[in-house]
Amino acid sequence: MSLATLDVSQHPNLPKSSVTLFEAKAKKKATFEAIAKAIGREEVAVAALFYGQATASPEDIQALSEYFDIDHEILEAQMSGFPDRGKSVEMPPKEPLIYRLYEIVQNYGYAYKAVMNEKFGDGIMSAIAFSTKVEKEVDKDGVTWAKITLRGKWLPFTRF
Amino acid sequence: MSLATLDVSQHPNLPKSSVTLFEAKAKKKATFEAIAKAIGREEVAVAALFYGQATASPEDIQALSEYFDIDHEILEAQMSGFPDRGKSVEMPPKEPLIYRLYEIVQNYGYAYKAVMNEKFGDGIMSAIAFSTKVEKEVDKDGVTWAKITLRGKWLPFTRF
Amino acid sequence: MSLATLDVSQHPNLPKSSVTLFEAKAKKKATFEAIAKAIGREEVAVAALFYGQATASPEDIQALSEYFDIDHEILEAQMSGFPDRGKSVEMPPKEPLIYRLYEIVQNYGYAYKAVMNEKFGDGIMSAIAFSTKVEKEVDKDGVTWAKITLRGKWLPFTRF
Amino acid sequence: MSLATLDVSQHPNLPKSSVTLFEAKAKKKATFEAIAKAIGREEVAVAALFYGQATASPEDIQALSEYFDIDHEILEAQMSGFPDRGKSVEMPPKEPLIYRLYEIVQNYGYAYKAVMNEKFGDGIMSAIAFSTKVEKEVDKDGVTWAKITLRGKWLPFTRF
Amino acid sequence: MSLATLDVSQHPNLPKSSVTLFEAKAKKKATFEAIAKAIGREEVAVAALFYGQATASPEDIQALSEYFDIDHEILEAQMSGFPDRGKSVEMPPKEPLIYRLYEIVQNYGYAYKAVMNEKFGDGIMSAIAFSTKVEKEVDKDGVTWAKITLRGKWLPFTRF
Amino acid sequence: MSLATLDVSQHPNLPKSSVTLFEAKAKKKATFEAIAKAIGREEVAVAALFYGQATASPEDIQALSEYFDIDHEILEAQMSGFPDRGKSVEMPPKEPLIYRLYEIVQNYGYAYKAVMNEKFGDGIMSAIAFSTKVEKEVDKDGVTWAKITLRGKWLPFTRF
Amino acid sequence: MSLATLDVSQHPNLPKSSVTLFEAKAKKKATFEAIAKAIGREEVAVAALFYGQATASPEDIQALSEYFDIDHEILEAQMSGFPDRGKSVEMPPKEPLIYRLYEIVQNYGYAYKAVMNEKFGDGIMSAIAFSTKVEKEVDKDGVTWAKITLRGKWLPFTRF
Amino acid sequence: MSLATLDVSQHPNLPKSSVTLFEAKAKKKATFEAIAKAIGREEVAVAALFYGQATASPEDIQALSEYFDIDHEILEAQMSGFPDRGKSVEMPPKEPLIYRLYEIVQNYGYAYKAVMNEKFGDGIMSAIAFSTKVEKEVDKDGVTWAKITLRGKWLPFTRF
Amino acid sequence: MSLATLDVSQHPNLPKSSVTLFEAKAKKKATFEAIAKAIGREEVAVAALFYGQATASPEDIQALSEYFDIDHEILEAQMSGFPDRGKSVEMPPKEPLIYRLYEIVQNYGYAYKAVMNEKFGDGIMSAIAFSTKVEKEVDKDGVTWAKITLRGKWLPFTRF
Amino acid sequence: MSLATLDVSQHPNLPKSSVTLFEAKAKKKATFEAIAKAIGREEVAVAALFYGQATASPEDIQALSEYFDIDHEILEAQMSGFPDRGKSVEMPPKEPLIYRLYEIVQNYGYAYKAVMNEKFGDGIMSAIAFSTKVEKEVDKDGVTWAKITLRGKWLPFTRF
Repeated sequence: MSLATLDVSQHPNLPKSSVTLFEAKAKKKATFEAIAKAIGREEVAVAALFYGQATASPEDIQALSEYFDIDHEILEAQMSGFPDRGKSVEMPPKEPLIYRLYEIVQNYGYAYKAVMNEKFGDGIMSAIAFSTKVEKEVDKDGVTWAKITLRGKWLPFTRF
Repeated sequence: MSLATLDVSQHPNLPKSSVTLFEAKAKKKATFEAIAKAIGREEVAVAALFYGQATASPEDIQALSEYFDIDHEILEAQMSGFPDRGKSVEMPPKEPLIYRLYEIVQNYGYAYKAVMNEKFGDGIMSAIAFSTKVEKEVDKDGVTWAKITLRGKWLPFTRF
Repeated sequence: MSLATLDVSQHPNLPKSSVTLFEAKAKKKATFEAIAKAIGREEVAVAALFYGQATASPEDIQALSEYFDIDHEILEAQMSGFPDRGKSVEMPPKEPLIYRLYEIVQNYGYAYKAVMNEKFGDGIMSAIAFSTKVEKEVDKDGVTWAKITLRGKWLPFTRF
Repeated sequence: MSLATLDVSQHPNLPKSSVTLFEAKAKKKATFEAIAKAIGREEVAVAALFYGQATASPEDIQALSEYFDIDHEILEAQMSGFPDRGKSVEMPPKEPLIYRLYEIVQNYGYAYKAVMNEKFGDGIMSAIAFSTKVEKEVDKDGVTWAKITLRGKWLPFTRF
Repeated sequence: MSLATLDVSQHPNLPKSSVTLFEAKAKKKATFEAIAKAIGREEVAVAALFYGQATASPEDIQALSEYFDIDHEILEAQMSGFPDRGKSVEMPPKEPLIYRLYEIVQNYGYAYKAVMNEKFGDGIMSAIAFSTKVEKEVDKDGVTWAKITLRGKWLPFTRF
Repeated sequence: MSLATLDVSQHPNLPKSSVTLFEAKAKKKATFEAIAKAIGREEVAVAALFYGQATASPEDIQALSEYFDIDHEILEAQMSGFPDRGKSVEMPPKEPLIYRLYEIVQNYGYAYKAVMNEKFGDGIMSAIAFSTKVEKEVDKDGVTWAKITLRGKWLPFTRF
Repeated sequence: MSLATLDVSQHPNLPKSSVTLFEAKAKKKATFEAIAKAIGREEVAVAALFYGQATASPEDIQALSEYFDIDHEILEAQMSGFPDRGKSVEMPPKEPLIYRLYEIVQNYGYAYKAVMNEKFGDGIMSAIAFSTKVEKEVDKDGVTWAKITLRGKWLPFTRF
Repeated sequence: MSLATLDVSQHPNLPKSSVTLFEAKAKKKATFEAIAKAIGREEVAVAALFYGQATASPEDIQALSEYFDIDHEILEAQMSGFPDRGKSVEMPPKEPLIYRLYEIVQNYGYAYKAVMNEKFGDGIMSAIAFSTKVEKEVDKDGVTWAKITLRGKWLPFTRF
Repeated sequence: MSLATLDVSQHPNLPKSSVTLFEAKAKKKATFEAIAKAIGREEVAVAALFYGQATASPEDIQALSEYFDIDHEILEAQMSGFPDRGKSVEMPPKEPLIYRLYEIVQNYGYAYKAVMNEKFGDGIMSAIAFSTKVEKEVDKDGVTWAKITLRGKWLPFTRF
Repeated sequence: MSLATLDVSQHPNLPKSSVTLFEAKAKKKATFEAIAKAIGREEVAVAALFYGQATASPEDIQALSEYFDIDHEILEAQMSGFPDRGKSVEMPPKEPLIYRLYEIVQNYGYAYKAVMNEKFGDGIMSAIAFSTKVEKEVDKDGVTWAKITLRGKWLPFTRF
C-alpha cells in the first residue's frame, strides 16, 4: 500500500495545517479512503482539506484530532479560518496527472459549453455548490479506468 | 429551444469545417442532442467535432453530410485531416462556464492526484483513451444539477 | 450629449451583433439610458448586450429590432446564440477607467474576502446570479461621485 | 462565529503589521465588524488595514493598540509608514471569491465604461478618492445576497 | 524637416480617426507643433489625439477639419466617441524611445513614491487630471537635452 | 510629519544597504528632503540610493555615515559596488502611485515619440544621462499638484 | 571523471530525497552509469529518480540505501511518496542543453505530429508508458554524437 | 489511408510554400513516407520542409516540383529563402501530441543534462547538426510503440 | 548564391517599405553585401533598414530608389517617417539563430555588466550611439567562425 | 578603483561558489582584469565563472584557490559540477546595462540573421563553441566606446 505524502520543500505556500495533517497521516500510515470513512466525508474532500482547499467543520476538526491523536487546540487554531483556495496548483500545471485534467478543459471547454447551454440555457455549472468523487472501474478485459464525477448546481445568468 | 451557434469573428482560429458545420446546424436548427442521436455518437463528442477537437470517421462524415445535406466531397476535404487540438480555448479561460471547470482543476488538482495515486498507484488518467458526458439531474427540491463524467484509462508510469 | 460608440478596428473579436447594434445606436443617436428605458432593462445590462456579454431574450431582440428599425431576422440570427463572454476586455486592462475597477479588486480583494467570510461564512458572491448598476451622485459641495452597486447571490461551498 | 485569520506561510509578502494584527485578532476572537465599531471605521477599510492596503491614522493606531492591548510603540513603528499597496492579491486571482470580482470587471468592463462615459463624460471613477462597503440582504424567499457598493469621485480628463 | 507618420500595418488596433488624421498630416506635411498652434492645444495632446488617446472637443474637430480640409461629418463620426485608451503601446514597450520612459518608472518608481508620500502624504499623482509637455534645452556646451514635464493633481486616499 | 519606511518582508530582493539606510532613517526620523539637503543631492536621487537604484560616491557614503552615525566601514562595504538596478518594481506595477506613472507611458508613449522625433530627429531621451525631480504646486484654488520633471540627454541614433 | 552534482541554492523546490541522494553521490563519487548498473535501471531513470521525477520501488530504495550506505528508514520516508513531477525545469528552459531539446519540440513539433498521424492514426505517443535512453556515438571522423531515444506506447484517441 | 493536411485558418503564420505544398499533397493524396522516398530525404525532414522548418536544396525544389507537378519557378520563389524557424508551434504547446514531447523535456530535462554531462563533459547536444526520425514498433503482445530518435553532434563549451 | 527574402505572411507587422524593398531585392537578386556597397552603408545597417529598424537618410532613399529602380516618390513616402523599432522579433526569439544571441545575453549578461562596470565605471554601453558588423573568419583548420562586433558609446549615469 | 561585488539578497539563485568567490574578491580587492591575468583566462570568462555560467577546469580551481587563498577542497567541492546556466539573468532583463544588449538582439535580430544567412548559408552562430571579450576604445575626440566581440563557430543545419 502506497501513501500520498507531502514534501514541504515542494509546496512552500500551503497552510500550516497541511504540514500537521500530512505528517500525522504518514505516521499513522492512513489512506485518504480510511480517513474519509473515519470522519464521514468524501475522499476528494478529505484530500482537499489536507491541501487547505476545503473548510473543516468543528466536527471535522474534532474527528481528525481524535483519529490522528493531534492536540485539538492546535488543530483548531490551524483549521478554523477560511481556506485561501487556489494556491496549491500552478497553472498551467506541470504535474502530468493534473495536466491531463487541464488538457480536458482546454480541448473540450467549448464542447461542454455548447452542450450545457443547449441542455440548461445560459448559465454555468457551479464549482462552489459542487461535489466530486473518483471511482475505479475494471472493464471486462481487465483494463483499469479512472472515473471522475463532477456535479454542480446549475446557475442561470440573472436577467437585469 | 436555444441553439449553440458560432460567430466566426470570435473564433478566427477554428478549422473551416467548424464554419461549415455550425452554419448547417443553425440552418437546420438542430441541437447537439439531435445530431448525436442521428450519427450515433455522444453529445460532447459531437460538439468537439464541431469545434475541430475530435476526429471524424468516414462514417461520421457520411452521416453528417446526409443529415445536414452538405456536399460529401466538401465535408470530406474539410474533415479528413487530423484535428489540431487545443486551439479553441485560450487559457486561463475567460468564459465563465469554462472557467469554472478550470477552477475545479486549480482547486482540486492535488486532491485528485493524491486520491488517484493511493487508489491506482503512480500514473495518470488518460485524456486520450477517454470519454466524457454531460447529464442533467433535478433533485427532489426541484434544483437542477449538471453532472459531468470523465472516464479515462489508467496509465501507470513505465519502469525503465 | 456624447455617445459611446464602437470602432471595430479596436475590437476585432466582438460578435457581429455588436457591430449591428452600435451602428444603429450611432445612427439614432440613442444613449444607453434611452435604450434601457425603451426595452425595460438596466443600463449596464444593455451595454453588456451591445458588447456581447449578456443574453438577449426573444423580447429583447424584438424590442431592439423595433426601436432601431433593424430587420428582425438579421438581429435574431446574430443574437440568439449563447454569449461567449470575457472577450471584450484584455487583462490586465489598459483602459484607465476599467483599470481602476481592476485595481479595486487588486487592492481590496482579500479585504472583501475577509469581511464576506465573516459575514456570510465560507462561499462566494455569485457573478452569475448577479446584477449591477451605475448611479450618479452630486454631494453638497457639488462634487460628482460615481456609485457602482454589485449584487450577487451568496453561494456557500457545498460540504461533501 | 467564524473568524478570518492569516496563515503567514500563504502570504509571505505582507507587512509585519499584518502578522501583529491578525494574531491579536485571533487571540481576542474579534470580528472585523466588532473592530470597525470599536475604532469608528468601515469594515472593509479595517480589513484593508489588516492586509496593509490602507493608511492608519495616529488615532487608528491608538485605538487598535488599546482595543487589542498591543504595545503602542511597536504598532506605531509597524504602521506609520505609507502602505505598499497591491501586493496581497496575485492577478489573475486564484481565490474563487476574489476571482468572481475579477470576472465582473472582465465581463462588464466595457459596459461600465460605456455607461459611465455617457453619464459623466470622458473620465474615470477614482479608486483613490473612493470608499466601499459590503452589505447583507435576505430577500423575501429567504435567499441571501451580498451587496458591494463602490463609490468613487468622478475625475474628468484634463484638457491640455 | 522630418514628420512623424503612421504605417497602419504596424498599428492595426488604432481607431479609424488615426488613419484619417495621419494621412492628412502627411499630405499637408504639418508638424505636431504647427497643428498644436493651429488648434490651440499642447503638442503632446495633439499627438495623443492622433493616436486615439485623448478626447477631441467639438471645437477640436472643427479646427482639425478646417486645418486639414477634411469633411467635417466624417471626422465628427470618427472622433466623437470616447477614446479607448492604452491600446497603442504594448508593454513592456519594444520601441527604444518609449522603453526609456518605462525604464525610468522601473528604476525610480519607489523613489518617486517615497518622495511624494513624504511631500504630499498618502495618495497618488493623477494621470487623469493631468497634463504633460516636451521641451528642448541646449546647454552651454551645445548638448541637447529633452525635458518632459508631468503635472498631475494630487489625490489623497479617502479615509472610510 | 510622515516618513517613508521599508518593510523588508515586502521587499526581499533589495540590497543590504537598503535595510541599513532605512533603519537609520526611521531611527533619526529624517525625511528625504532633510537628507538631500545634508548630503547635497536631489531628493529623488537620495531615495533612489536608499532603494539601491543609484551609485553612491565615496563622498555620499562619508556624508551618509556621518549624518546617520553609521559605521563608515560597514556602509562602504555595502554601498561601494555597482547598483543592480530595476529590481525594486515589479512590472506592471501594482502600487497605485507607481501604476499611474506606468499608465502615462502606456497612454502617451507614442505621442511622446512622435513629438520628440519631430523636435529632435531619430533618437531617444537618455534614462542614464538623466536627472529628475518632484515639485509641489498649489494653484490659486488651493488645489495641490505634483510636478515631475524628467530631463535626459538627447541621443541620436548613429548612422553606420 | 566529472560528476553531476546538486547545488540546492539553485534548486530550492526539489524534494528532500534529492539532497540526500546527490550528497551521497558526491561523497561516493559515483556516476549515474555506475548507479544504474548497481540498481539495475536505466541511467536516465536513475537521474530522474535523483531529481524526484520518477518513482522508486521498494527494491530501488533498498538498493540505493545499500549502495550509498544511507539509513534505510530515512530514505524510505523520503522516497515512498508519489513524485510531484515537472518542478525541476522552468519553461522555457534557460539551461542551454535543455533548451536545445525544447527547441527541437518547437521546430519539429508539427512535423512529428504529421508523420506520426500518418503512421499511426489519430493519437499520441505516451510520455507515461514511456522509456528513454542516451547513447554516445563516435563516427568515422572521430566526431562525437549524442543519441537520445524516446519510446512511448501509441495511444489512439477513444471514439465516444 | 489518412493524410496530414493543412487548414490555413489554423496556421496563419506559415510561409506561402506551406500552402502550396500541402495543397499539392492533398490533391495527390501522398503520404510523407511516399514523398520522402520520392525525394530521398527522411520523413520528418520532409514534414519539416512542408511547415517551413527546414531548407530545401535546389534538388529538393526540383524533385518536389516534378513529384507534385508544380511550376518550378513558383516553388523556387517560395522555397529559396532561409527558413524562419520556430513559428509553427506556440509554447507551451496546446496540441496533445506535441505537448507530450514538451512534457518529456519538462520532466526529464535535468536528468538528460546530468547523464549527458557525465557521459560527454560540459556541452550540449546540437539541435542544428542534428537529425531525427520516427519509427513504429509492435511488441510481442501486439502493442504499438512509437520510437523517436534524436541524434545531434556533441558540442563542448569553448574555454576562453 | 542564396538570398534572404521576406515572406509577408510570416511578418505581418513590418512596415510597407519592407515589402517594397524585399521584393525589389528578390527581383534583382541582390545580396545585402552588394546593396551595402552600392549605397555606402554597413551590411547589418542595410538589413536593419529593410526590416524597418533603422532610419533612411534622403541620400539612402535616393540611392535605393536608383539601385532598385523603384519610383522615388513611393519609396520616400514609405521610408521618410521615424522607424517604429523592436517589432520584428518576438521575445524570447523562436528562431534558432536569433535565440543564440539571446542566450548569450541570458548567460553572460551579468558577466558583461561586472567587467564593464570595472572597466568603465557605473553606466551602460549605448545601443543608440552604436554600430555593429558581422565578419567571417576561417581558422587554420578550415573551420568557419562568425564574428559579431558591437560598438557603443559608453554612457555614465548622471549624478543628480 | 571600483569593484564589482555580489549582494546575495539580490541573487538568491546563484551557486554557493559565487558567494565564496565574490567574498574573496571583495576581501582581496581584485578586479576581474587582475584575476584574468593571474589564472590565464579572458576577463568575461572569469566573470562568468564567478556567476556560475562557465566551467572551471581543475587548473582554474587550483589557480583561484591559490590566488585567493581559499581552501582547495572547499572550492573544488563547490566548483567541480557542471554549471546550471541561465539562472543569473531574468528575461526581459531589468538591469539597464544588460537590457541594452537585449535591445540589440530585439532590434537587429533579423538583420543579423539575414546577413549571416547570406554570408554563411543556413545555420547558426554557436553560443557554445564561442568566446567573447570586452574592450575599451577612446576615439580622437576623447569619447569612450565599449566594444564587445562575439565569436562563434558557424554551424550549418544538417540535411537529413
